[in-house]
Amino acid sequence: MDFQFSKRVPNLNNDVVGEILKVAGDPDIISFAGGLPAPELFPVKQMQKAANEVFEHDGQDALQYTASIGNPKLRSLVKNRMQTHKHISCDVNNVCITTGSEQSIDLIAKMMVNPGDVVLVEKPTYLCALDVFRSYGAKIIGVDMDDDGMKVDTLADTLEKYPEAKLIYTIPNFQNPTGRTMPANRREKVANLASQYDVIVMEDDPYGEIRYSGKAINPIKHFDPDGHVIYMSTFSKILAPGMRLGWIVADKKFVDMFVVMKQSADLHSDNLSQYIIARFMEENDLDAHIQKIRDVYYSRASMMIKEIDEQFPKGVKHSNPEGGMFIWVEVPGNINTMDLFNTCVEHNVAFVPGEPFYPDDVIPGTFRVNFSNMNDNQIHEGIRRMAVAIDEMMNK
Amino acid sequence: MDFQFSKRVPNLNNDVVGEILKVAGDPDIISFAGGLPAPELFPVKQMQKAANEVFEHDGQDALQYTASIGNPKLRSLVKNRMQTHKHISCDVNNVCITTGSEQSIDLIAKMMVNPGDVVLVEKPTYLCALDVFRSYGAKIIGVDMDDDGMKVDTLADTLEKYPEAKLIYTIPNFQNPTGRTMPANRREKVANLASQYDVIVMEDDPYGEIRYSGKAINPIKHFDPDGHVIYMSTFSKILAPGMRLGWIVADKKFVDMFVVMKQSADLHSDNLSQYIIARFMEENDLDAHIQKIRDVYYSRASMMIKEIDEQFPKGVKHSNPEGGMFIWVEVPGNINTMDLFNTCVEHNVAFVPGEPFYPDDVIPGTFRVNFSNMNDNQIHEGIRRMAVAIDEMMNK
Repeated sequence: MDFQFSKRVPNLNNDVVGEILKVAGDPDIISFAGGLPAPELFPVKQMQKAANEVFEHDGQDALQYTASIGNPKLRSLVKNRMQTHKHISCDVNNVCITTGSEQSIDLIAKMMVNPGDVVLVEKPTYLCALDVFRSYGAKIIGVDMDDDGMKVDTLADTLEKYPEAKLIYTIPNFQNPTGRTMPANRREKVANLASQYDVIVMEDDPYGEIRYSGKAINPIKHFDPDGHVIYMSTFSKILAPGMRLGWIVADKKFVDMFVVMKQSADLHSDNLSQYIIARFMEENDLDAHIQKIRDVYYSRASMMIKEIDEQFPKGVKHSNPEGGMFIWVEVPGNINTMDLFNTCVEHNVAFVPGEPFYPDDVIPGTFRVNFSNMNDNQIHEGIRRMAVAIDEMMNK
Repeated sequence: MDFQFSKRVPNLNNDVVGEILKVAGDPDIISFAGGLPAPELFPVKQMQKAANEVFEHDGQDALQYTASIGNPKLRSLVKNRMQTHKHISCDVNNVCITTGSEQSIDLIAKMMVNPGDVVLVEKPTYLCALDVFRSYGAKIIGVDMDDDGMKVDTLADTLEKYPEAKLIYTIPNFQNPTGRTMPANRREKVANLASQYDVIVMEDDPYGEIRYSGKAINPIKHFDPDGHVIYMSTFSKILAPGMRLGWIVADKKFVDMFVVMKQSADLHSDNLSQYIIARFMEENDLDAHIQKIRDVYYSRASMMIKEIDEQFPKGVKHSNPEGGMFIWVEVPGNINTMDLFNTCVEHNVAFVPGEPFYPDDVIPGTFRVNFSNMNDNQIHEGIRRMAVAIDEMMNK
């Protein structure tokens, strides 16, 4: 039978990403397309210990329904970390646990965007956020970036043009897909523009803790003068993405309504996982664990950049991330990225083409490579294969 | 600051339920308002054992991202159970794991309902489903019930009046809030009407396995001639609601699109909990565990009905559920249920008034009481207190 889906459902013929990931799943292919953390760094033993203690001491409570806003202990631990590590002024009533950052994005969009409302995003940006905004009928406007992330002068001009805009979606640290980071002065400007134009900033910070070089920068939320900024983060990159848990930090009035909407979405996030992560945080040094992740990712990113610099043809540019999981590559000469992707696949190597990350005009020849889940051999050999493919395309 | 929320956000001044649950949380009050399973029946030890084995054998995989459609082993176990216990013709491609039934309802509504579209529901019905339908702008039409659940003749008339209806939402087993069950002949009729009018049936079956008397009845999905029925269930009532996991069984074309929408909602459901429940199901007799739940709930429901029959004033009616967690009470004489609620609270006992369960016209003097999470003393004393309050109200 044929289903008459609502307007929120996308046209599946455009599922480029699904097709790419399918090809990239071929075991003969070295795939830089994914975005997975390194599983060998997951603290399996410590998590098992924490789980055992939860079952021993709080088994019945952890298996029962809980409040939509989340486990009180976990919310308090997150609140402390937001104060000490992010210099965000907040109390526990500003924190709501979510079923990962994807749910944070989905619920905020559902709460703020009527069909036709304007949402401003970095160009390029996280493709699943674009899917969410589209599903609620947003008019998505891209704001140009440079090596320092979103251009705030362009943002100001865009707000002048669309003063009715509802949301600004930004990933200020090691952005997905570009790996770029926004400096402090731009962050302060974004916070002030949000207040001036009465627009909500969705500050998505899944990678912020995975900074392996340079100095930490306070989040946009730190500069928030009056509650226009919603900060989002997740345990996916610092602990384990399989336990689907993230959080938002926002004005209490916003959190109160967010909780109502979350109740309609999934009642609450997995309570057992909330108990286990809270226990883990109480008895382990999370900062020490994160340092291990930083060290490994730094080594992998450095190696990948070295290989790119040595092996890719002249004229190819790349970003120089100070953290996170991704490098952005720009091949000159107006090359069709899907053709380049297909040539790479012939050489048994894959990436994610730039196209799906762009809300509107696509810059050709751009793509994202992931280094977090790749060992040294894969990085060396994969970049070698890509270099051959790019060379072929550039000299066609 | 004031947030300009989208039209999907409800008017919080109407949060009757939140207020009721707040009052009902007072420790001096015996509250029949909740809908919690009995936590002393949670298989904590066996779940701990399963969790340890998952950490030992599949730790890294269980903590990593997984496919949006869900863990393959869990999907296969669910598929087997749907075949053997529910007589649903399906294969593993018809099964998608969800973050609980609430997410199943939310995503199906998001996929099917454009603003203004007609959704048919039992009158009264699960109040959080009403919240979801409203959030997507549905025009909700209530269909009358009798002791055998939704009246299918009325359903046929309603479909004749609204042939463009998009969804029929029904809870055929031990319905929430009424505890009523729809017999087989009505189920077959619903399936055929859905096909005839090209409308999708959302068959919500969280309680179906908790049948403690009478004979099991095949689900509507069993009678589905051509894919118009989506069956939904959950581990919340048979294992543990804290591990937020449910599933849908639907036409493959529907599942394929559902997975795309789920990806935008939370990427996937908690992977660790999926691994643990799959392991639990492989090494324990789930049917034997469910039988224990049935025995306890049967005893509690029987006691509550006996107490109601003995203590409530003449003329008060109640449903006689053959399973589930709820009894529906109807007090005669056009009594205002909120006044009755307040009188009960003065007597330190609480329930959920009927109002929020009705999509449109409210039948006064109706309310829901829960027995699954109550011990014998609470049932005896709570019903005694309610009897006094009802008597006061009826003789005012």
